[in-house]
Amino acid sequence: MERIEHRACFGGWQDVYRHDSAVLGCTMNFAVYLPSQAEKARLPVLYWLSGLTCTEQNFITKAGVQRYAAEHGVIVVAPDTSPRGEGVADDPAYDLGQGAGFYLNATQQPWAAHYRMHDYVAEELPALIEAGFPANGVRGISGHSMGGHGALTIALRQPGRYRSVSAFAPIVAPAQVPWGEKAFAAYLGPDRADWARYDATELLKTATERLPLLVDQGQADEFLAVQLKPELLREACAKADHPLTLRLHPGYDHSYYFVASFIGEHMAWHVRAMKG
Amino acid sequence: MERIEHRACFGGWQDVYRHDSAVLGCTMNFAVYLPSQAEKARLPVLYWLSGLTCTEQNFITKAGVQRYAAEHGVIVVAPDTSPRGEGVADDPAYDLGQGAGFYLNATQQPWAAHYRMHDYVAEELPALIEAGFPANGVRGISGHSMGGHGALTIALRQPGRYRSVSAFAPIVAPAQVPWGEKAFAAYLGPDRADWARYDATELLKTATERLPLLVDQGQADEFLAVQLKPELLREACAKADHPLTLRLHPGYDHSYYFVASFIGEHMAWHVRAMKG
Repeated sequence: MERIEHRACFGGWQDVYRHDSAVLGCTMNFAVYLPSQAEKARLPVLYWLSGLTCTEQNFITKAGVQRYAAEHGVIVVAPDTSPRGEGVADDPAYDLGQGAGFYLNATQQPWAAHYRMHDYVAEELPALIEAGFPANGVRGISGHSMGGHGALTIALRQPGRYRSVSAFAPIVAPAQVPWGEKAFAAYLGPDRADWARYDATELLKTATERLPLLVDQGQADEFLAVQLKPELLREACAKADHPLTLRLHPGYDHSYYFVASFIGEHMAWHVRAMKG
Repeated sequence: MERIEHRACFGGWQDVYRHDSAVLGCTMNFAVYLPSQAEKARLPVLYWLSGLTCTEQNFITKAGVQRYAAEHGVIVVAPDTSPRGEGVADDPAYDLGQGAGFYLNATQQPWAAHYRMHDYVAEELPALIEAGFPANGVRGISGHSMGGHGALTIALRQPGRYRSVSAFAPIVAPAQVPWGEKAFAAYLGPDRADWARYDATELLKTATERLPLLVDQGQADEFLAVQLKPELLREACAKADHPLTLRLHPGYDHSYYFVASFIGEHMAWHVRAMKG
């Protein structure tokens, strides 16, 4: 594990590390923000999953999360969105292949060799963080768009593993929308029964843990009606009697200006659960 | 004037406009953040000048200023850093030509036709803002690196025009450092007497207004010793008995992580002067 960026920020350090991932079979970057409190204490960790086309850089440069992490004493970890590199399968489209891992374990060729972002985010990365940084083992998870899908599905698939979960403009029902249908068919094959394991609205049907969900959605989001469909999450939570706070924000679009506007409230939500 | 971006952010709007600049003789973009208070009242405007290679985008995507502008009710305007376009002289180097206007009025060819960023920032842009947006005529100015140089020199050259001024890692004495020597020789010619009009440490010798300067500088800034030299500003202010708050921050580099960490305190500094 090699530190490739190290920048003072709000009294702490915004770092980027590079490491060889055993799960993904390639070299990966991840970002970690260490507030000043990490010099003296073990802290909870908020994992952030980014959306299509992003790397580990987008969230740390655009969301302004460091101010809130410094205020509350929370470590923030942001991985890349897929395996990367010359030996890793790719596709020219922005919504498949590198930059579009969809936080699942692929079973189909040519993807199965490297595309195991679910296990990377849920297992390998937390183990690495908890061994190498002053983390106290308490975890929250959040994300944006494809990363919101990742946060919801990983939390729902791993009862007890996360103390809190939230999402910005998540793909709540990938098995029912074009982005998810394309990616799931490629990564998981044609059998839709296999898709349900990575669809938040399906996972809610059998969820054993009542982990409350916080979801923010902009009403001017250009992907709202076709790809995001928050009403499907509302229905699934209502049917499953699963606690959901779904907030619809007039005027907000799909950009990081939307994420930046509400990341402070998400941080407070996670802190209440992670430190409560 | 055409609005080309319009994004909800912290209850207000982060917009980008395109217009034909008469001063620069080309089409220019500028960013404007309008907090919600602008719907009902005329507000002070903080002008932000960015550094080498930047456009109007860098500050609005990376600094997190919108939160503070929304909190205090301040409009924030961020222009591009030079004239742009196919008909505008350029140079392959990052520190000359497009993206490197140095906030001066060029007198030498091939630059003189378009490179008049001083007059654009000090005159044309404020006139446009005050005619087209709910601005109350009260102005502050700040910037980073080359833009810190721009903020200091424009404020010092225009007594009474700005209520407040601050800078992050500014080029305080361009006539004495490589970035400035190269740019000033190209834009202004070989006579160093002409350079003094765009050098903050020189302008302080004859400043008639005691406008207090706030300057933040990271001590791990990779450009500190060769290009920035804040000690020259300290000496010039001491000699001229000009009020200076110079803060040196251990660990901080030249990036927007540094700007983001202290932009809230700069906003508070400007608000005290602009609304006091």
